[in-house]
Amino acid sequence: MPAHRSGLSASTALPRLSRAEIDRAELQLSGKVVRTPVIRSDQLDALCGARLWLKAENLQRGGSFKFRGALLAIEALAAAGSHGVIAQSTGNHAIAIAIAAHEYGLPTLIVLPSDAPPSKVRRIREACAQVVFAGTMLAERVAAVEELRELRGYDVVDPYENPHVVAGQGTATAELLAQAAAEDVCLDTVVVPIGGGSALAGSCLAVAGHRATVVGAEPEAVPAFTAALQAGEPVTVGARPTIADGLRPDRIGALPFSIAARSAVQVLTVTEEAIADALRAALLRARLLVEPAAATALAGALEYAAGPGRGTDIGVLLSGGNVEPSLVAALLAETSDNVPRPRAS
Amino acid sequence: MPAHRSGLSASTALPRLSRAEIDRAELQLSGKVVRTPVIRSDQLDALCGARLWLKAENLQRGGSFKFRGALLAIEALAAAGSHGVIAQSTGNHAIAIAIAAHEYGLPTLIVLPSDAPPSKVRRIREACAQVVFAGTMLAERVAAVEELRELRGYDVVDPYENPHVVAGQGTATAELLAQAAAEDVCLDTVVVPIGGGSALAGSCLAVAGHRATVVGAEPEAVPAFTAALQAGEPVTVGARPTIADGLRPDRIGALPFSIAARSAVQVLTVTEEAIADALRAALLRARLLVEPAAATALAGALEYAAGPGRGTDIGVLLSGGNVEPSLVAALLAETSDNVPRPRAS
Repeated sequence: MPAHRSGLSASTALPRLSRAEIDRAELQLSGKVVRTPVIRSDQLDALCGARLWLKAENLQRGGSFKFRGALLAIEALAAAGSHGVIAQSTGNHAIAIAIAAHEYGLPTLIVLPSDAPPSKVRRIREACAQVVFAGTMLAERVAAVEELRELRGYDVVDPYENPHVVAGQGTATAELLAQAAAEDVCLDTVVVPIGGGSALAGSCLAVAGHRATVVGAEPEAVPAFTAALQAGEPVTVGARPTIADGLRPDRIGALPFSIAARSAVQVLTVTEEAIADALRAALLRARLLVEPAAATALAGALEYAAGPGRGTDIGVLLSGGNVEPSLVAALLAETSDNVPRPRAS
Repeated sequence: MPAHRSGLSASTALPRLSRAEIDRAELQLSGKVVRTPVIRSDQLDALCGARLWLKAENLQRGGSFKFRGALLAIEALAAAGSHGVIAQSTGNHAIAIAIAAHEYGLPTLIVLPSDAPPSKVRRIREACAQVVFAGTMLAERVAAVEELRELRGYDVVDPYENPHVVAGQGTATAELLAQAAAEDVCLDTVVVPIGGGSALAGSCLAVAGHRATVVGAEPEAVPAFTAALQAGEPVTVGARPTIADGLRPDRIGALPFSIAARSAVQVLTVTEEAIADALRAALLRARLLVEPAAATALAGALEYAAGPGRGTDIGVLLSGGNVEPSLVAALLAETSDNVPRPRAS
């Protein structure tokens, strides 16, 4: 892949990615990202009647799997002689870009929604990036990015349309498949959260040649992928509030959509209550602090596993762990006993 | 080791354990206990200026490292034809014994303090064990155990004096050393929490022939090991309240003390505030839910690492993750920003 120096619009010819890019990304990232553990939990398995293989990317550098794609993209830009980076995101891509760019000595501007969680803003500033706030919708952030790009001449690292980002994100699923295989297990399914679509697209590429199918889980409040599947192309949806701050993009990326649309992907929409329940279950049953986006994937997996004929081994991309302490406190205080009960499967 | 069918009193000749028992225990437990991951956290490392290697036994079966010793002891009893088991503990040993005994079809009586955390009581009952409450002090539980033993003729699995238990607990540290070595790291120190002493003793055995030294961390509120070191033998201390419910035994076991006393062990006492801070730090910085006993070890490691000449690679036994949701909620609500700040090292 050549260095990718700006966000692609839907009208640009989309790069054609394959499993080969994931393999190359894995090689390049080896030793630079955490090979996060795959966690098993008797107590979560008992909830859904399947064996869940939890890819703990909440333990990744920067607190989420987004560091994988960010580092790959930044390395390409640094090699191409970039003199600065701009990124917009609801949080994790921004943290990841800030940390990766700082390692390569690239000045960084981060465009965030005005309601971004304070802990994410702090992490970005700790990595010496400059933060710019722009509205609460994707379109507002994208407009701010364009303005800053013209002003500064920095390179934009798009969280969804950049092929390095998508390939990097896919390495999490590639690792998960390999880690399960090392225990003689062939995963039937990998469940991933859907925001802008980079996790979904990366996973679709990673499972090529493998029997696992990809299931995407998105908040009922922001059904951007469901709407895109219906329309046959990315469309902007009317988003309602969701605790899954990482999954707020109200439109799926063109590159991720093109990859997911040619794969056999299933999509599940998850209620806010199910996301909250899954976050509590991850914390109290698997002892992992995950953010609501990751809990969305877990909620999807619990729901999916309870259906008939769903296979026995289900991978779950626990995408990140960057969550506000106050949200966790509120969810725990709400009810300490309201972890999901085992269902008949 | 022969099957060990009852608690040893201090006057009984103590079994002489060595690293060989740890090696045998590791072999026997292989595939039956979780080889828990060793977690690194940039954010915790930044706090103390050392590299921490966190042995995540909060991800162990039963939620704590105690499952290791419990399973080893139960397998010995089952092989010896036991027809039932009694155990007393402040929680984790009890959960571990209940689960292990249930797997071997042995009826189980568990003696708990009357203030045992509800979540631990629930877990024990879920494993089909019968729960008996007896006061809040170790001596009261021990008396209840003796009474029940005479009444039922069951075998007692003591949490501190049973050599299988001590050897089993030691496998956690043995694994940690091996996992660090697999990354070409030779740990300088392993920090473990001190309650009744089985973790401490097991770790002392496990580091034999290795350059790592063992540092024990105990709550300032229950300085049972510090007092025993001063007295030259186990003594009962006046215990004050501590959030570290797993470290409430007010007297160190005779077997653990005999092992620790002939090793070069350092001991640190940790304040309640430091335990709370460390629990928050583990959760928010390393994204691991640990119980206060494990947080005591982490607090000890953070304090130890900040001292001069303390080496660069410090292992920490995160002993368990069985914590009341309400306690976590309270600690998070107390202050979301009061995670420890980096100190000069």
